[in-house]
Amino acid sequence: MTATAVASTPMMDVLEERFRRAALLSEAQSVLHWDASVTMPRGAAPSRGEQLAELDVLAHGIIADSSLIDLFGAAEAEPLDGWRRANLREMRRQHVHASALPEALVGAMTRAGSACESVWRDARAKSDFAAVLPLFEQVVALAREAAAAKAGVLGLSPYDALLDRFEPDARIAEIEPVFAALERFLVDFLPRAEEAQARAGAPLPLNGPYDLDAQRSLIRDMAGVVGFDFQHGRLDESAHPFSTSWPGDRRITVRYDEADPLSALFAVLHECGHSLYEAALPKKGLRQPIGAARGMQLHESQSLAVEMQVGRSDTFLSFLAPRLQQAFDGAPEFAADNLAKLVRRVERGFIRVEADEVTYPLHVILRTRLERALLSGDLAPRDLPGAWNEGFAALMGRTPPEDRLGCLQDIHWYDGAFGYFPTYTLGAMSAAQLFQAAQDQDSSIAPAIAAGDLKPLLAWLGTHVHGLGSSQSTRDILIGATGRPLEAAAFEQHLQRRYGGL
Amino acid sequence: MTATAVASTPMMDVLEERFRRAALLSEAQSVLHWDASVTMPRGAAPSRGEQLAELDVLAHGIIADSSLIDLFGAAEAEPLDGWRRANLREMRRQHVHASALPEALVGAMTRAGSACESVWRDARAKSDFAAVLPLFEQVVALAREAAAAKAGVLGLSPYDALLDRFEPDARIAEIEPVFAALERFLVDFLPRAEEAQARAGAPLPLNGPYDLDAQRSLIRDMAGVVGFDFQHGRLDESAHPFSTSWPGDRRITVRYDEADPLSALFAVLHECGHSLYEAALPKKGLRQPIGAARGMQLHESQSLAVEMQVGRSDTFLSFLAPRLQQAFDGAPEFAADNLAKLVRRVERGFIRVEADEVTYPLHVILRTRLERALLSGDLAPRDLPGAWNEGFAALMGRTPPEDRLGCLQDIHWYDGAFGYFPTYTLGAMSAAQLFQAAQDQDSSIAPAIAAGDLKPLLAWLGTHVHGLGSSQSTRDILIGATGRPLEAAAFEQHLQRRYGGL
Repeated sequence: MTATAVASTPMMDVLEERFRRAALLSEAQSVLHWDASVTMPRGAAPSRGEQLAELDVLAHGIIADSSLIDLFGAAEAEPLDGWRRANLREMRRQHVHASALPEALVGAMTRAGSACESVWRDARAKSDFAAVLPLFEQVVALAREAAAAKAGVLGLSPYDALLDRFEPDARIAEIEPVFAALERFLVDFLPRAEEAQARAGAPLPLNGPYDLDAQRSLIRDMAGVVGFDFQHGRLDESAHPFSTSWPGDRRITVRYDEADPLSALFAVLHECGHSLYEAALPKKGLRQPIGAARGMQLHESQSLAVEMQVGRSDTFLSFLAPRLQQAFDGAPEFAADNLAKLVRRVERGFIRVEADEVTYPLHVILRTRLERALLSGDLAPRDLPGAWNEGFAALMGRTPPEDRLGCLQDIHWYDGAFGYFPTYTLGAMSAAQLFQAAQDQDSSIAPAIAAGDLKPLLAWLGTHVHGLGSSQSTRDILIGATGRPLEAAAFEQHLQRRYGGL
Repeated sequence: MTATAVASTPMMDVLEERFRRAALLSEAQSVLHWDASVTMPRGAAPSRGEQLAELDVLAHGIIADSSLIDLFGAAEAEPLDGWRRANLREMRRQHVHASALPEALVGAMTRAGSACESVWRDARAKSDFAAVLPLFEQVVALAREAAAAKAGVLGLSPYDALLDRFEPDARIAEIEPVFAALERFLVDFLPRAEEAQARAGAPLPLNGPYDLDAQRSLIRDMAGVVGFDFQHGRLDESAHPFSTSWPGDRRITVRYDEADPLSALFAVLHECGHSLYEAALPKKGLRQPIGAARGMQLHESQSLAVEMQVGRSDTFLSFLAPRLQQAFDGAPEFAADNLAKLVRRVERGFIRVEADEVTYPLHVILRTRLERALLSGDLAPRDLPGAWNEGFAALMGRTPPEDRLGCLQDIHWYDGAFGYFPTYTLGAMSAAQLFQAAQDQDSSIAPAIAAGDLKPLLAWLGTHVHGLGSSQSTRDILIGATGRPLEAAAFEQHLQRRYGGL
C-alpha cells in the first residue's frame, strides 16, 4: 500500500500467484509420473493413482475456477506491459480449455478412455478390432460431445476445438491445403526416393550384439554433445521411453536393444530436442502460462530438428560415425556412408512410429483425415478398419494384412486423444523451415555441427523459438524466425536433397 | 439422503475426506523428498524447494483450518463406532499441533533452523561452536517461544508440549524416573560389560576391502529375509541413508563402505524394522490419522527390534555368519563367534550414532537433560559446551577433546528439534520389553529366527503393535502387548544377558 514508482497491478498479481501454485502442483504430478514409470515398485501403482488424481483435482481446480473470470476482467484494466498482457491472454486460454467441459463429461471421458485403452492393449496384440469396438464407440461418442461443447465455448469448429488444445490457434482450414500439397509431393516423390535408394545399393546390415554398457556410455556422451545438461537432467531406462521436465530438471528415458544401438541413440537425440526447448524457456515466464512451450507443433519441431535435421545429416553423421566405430570395435557397418544408409532407409512400412522421414507424413495425413471423419460422423467407428486399409493403400500402395498393423497400432484414439496427429507433421515441416532459416542467417551453424557443436544452432533457436515461450503465436514465431508462415517448401527441399538421389 | 441401515455420519465423512486429501499431499511430498535425496540432479534443488513448500502449505492448510473445530464438534455428536471415534481424537490432536503456533512463528522457526543448520555443518567440521552460537541462540529462543505457546494450547508443560509432537502423550514426569533408574543401572553395568569383553578377548578385525556388489547382493537378500517386500519397496543408495514410505511403497537408502559391510547391513536391518511397521499399519485406517504409526517411541522400537533384539542375537548371527562368509570368500572374521564380538563391541565413544546398545542410552540421557535445561532457561546456549563436557564426563568418565565430538555432533537442536532425543531410548526399552513378551507368548518365534524366518515375530508384532495404528496410546499398546507399562527391566535384563559375560 506504499506509494512507489511501480504501477500497481493487484489483480494480475493475484492471478500470477494462482497460476504459479497450479504450476507447482503440475510439477509435483510430473515427478510422481516419472517415478511411477522409472523407479516405483509395481505394488505401489494403486496408491500412486490416488496421489496423482488428488494433485490433478487441485491443479485443475485452480485453473478452471470460475472466480478467475472476474479477475481476468479486473487485471485487463491494470497497467500491464506487453509481456504480462500476453500472459493474461494465455491464462484465459488455459482457463477456457479447463472449464469448457462439464465435470461429468470429463469424468466420463477419463473412465471411458482408461477402460478402452486397457482393452485396446489386448485387442492390438490379438489384432482383434471387434474386441475394442464397443468401448471405442463410447470414446468416439464422448469425444464428439466434448468437441461440440468446446466448439461452442471457443467459437471454433468441433475439430479445431480439439486441435487447439494441443496446438493453440491451429486451424484445420489452414492445415488442409498444406497437407494436400505435401501429399501430392510425397506420392510423387516416394517412388523416386526408392529408386535412388535402390541405385545406391543396400547397406551392410547391423551385426550385433552391441554391448549395452558401450551403448549407455556412447548415448550419454552424445546427449551431452547436443547440449543435454546433466546438472539439470537425467537419462534413465524404462520400458516405454519418454521425456518429461519441470523447472531445473529434464529427464529422458531410454530402452536399450542389444541388437540395435541406433534406435535408442536417435530416440535420445529426439528427446534431447524436446528437453533443450524446455531448458531454454524464458526465466521471466517461470511457472506462468506465458513461460510454457508454445504447443506441440513447435515442440515436435525441436525434437525433429535435433533428431532429423541435425542428427541424420551428413555433417553430423561424419562426426558420429567414428564414435560409433570406436564404441563397437571398429564395426564396419558404422562407417559414415553405411551409417547414412542405415539411418535414412525409406520404406513403405505399416507402423508410424518406425517410419522414416519420407513416409511419416503419409501416416499422419491418413490419420488426420480419418479422425476428422470420425468426429464429424462421416465415418462410423465400426467402419474404421476398412477406411484405414483403403486410405493406406491409396497413399502407400500396400494394404495392412491385419489391424494390428493398421488401425489398432496407435494408442491416441483409444485413449480419447483426437486432434493430436497433425502436430507431428506440422512439426516436421517447421523443423525443416527453421533449420533452413537458421543456416541461412548464421553461417557458423553448419561447420560447428560438423565438429559436434550445436551451440550456434541452439543460440539461434533460443532467440527465435525457445526464449519466446508462449508470448507469441506459433504462426508469429515462425514468421519472426523464418520470414514466412509455415509452408511445405523447406521440408520438401530437405527430402529432395537427402533422399532424391541427385 | 436415502434411508439405509447405516448410521448417517455426514460431518465425520467430511472430516475423513479432508484428512485423506491432506494425507495424499503429504505422500506426494514424501515422493519428492525421496527423489531429491536419491535421484534428482543437483541443479534442480531450488525448484524442488518451491514444489515442496507449496505441498506443505496445502497439506498444513487443511489440517490447521479453523473450520475443522466446528466439524469436530458436530462429528462428536454423530453415531461413530469406537474406531472412528478414536480417529476423531487423532484428528483433533493433529489439528491442535498444526494450529497451535502462529504462522509468523512457524515461518521464523523454519528460517532460523535452516540458517542455523547450514552454518552448523561448517561449524561442526571446524569444531567451532562460537561460529554457530549467534544463530543457535535464535533457534533456542524461538523454540522456547514455541514451547510456551504450545504449552498454553495443550495444557502441558513447555517441554511436554514439544515431546508430545514426536511421541503423543509422553510426559517427562513419567520418563524421568525410568531414565534415572536406567542411568543408575548403566553407570554400574558399563564397567562390568567392559570387563567381560576384555576377558573374552579382542575379535579378529575387519579385513577388507569387501566387494561392493557382494555387499549389495547380501544386503538385498537379508532385507528380504527379515520381511522387506520388494514388490512394495526399493533399496537405493544415497549419501545420507534414510527410509521413507507412503501407502504401498517403502523405500530405504544405504551408503556402502568397502571397508565395512556390517555397518550398512545393520543400518538396513534397522530401516527394515521401520518399514515393516509402516507396511503392516491397519488398511482400515488408510490415509487417516488413526492409521498412522503411533509415535517415534514405537517406531524406534520396531527398528531396534529388528536391528538389535533380533539382528545382533546369537540366534540370528548363527544364521547370518555363514552367509557373510559365503559372500566374502569364507572370511574368518565372519565366523559366528567373531562376528558376535564385532557387532556387539561396547565402547565409551563420543559419537551417539556410532554407539553400542549399552552406552547409547547414556548419550540420550545427557541430551534429554541438557535440552530440558536449554528450554527452561536454566542453561544458556553459550554455556552448552561446558555443560556437555561435564555431563559426558560424569556419565562416561571421559571428556570430549573438541566440540565436534561433543555438543556439535547432532543436527537436532541446530535444526530446532527439541523433545525428540528421549524417543531413541524409550524405543530401545520398548523393543526389549516387546521382544521379551513376544517370545514368552509364542515359543515358535525364537526357533524361526534361527532359520532366518521372522514371520512368527512379525505376526505377533502385527497383532500387538503394527495393526493397531494410532487407535490406542503408546502406553495402552505396551500394556496390551506385554501386560505392563514401559519399564527398564526387560532392557536391563537384555543387556545383562548379552553383555554381562555371565
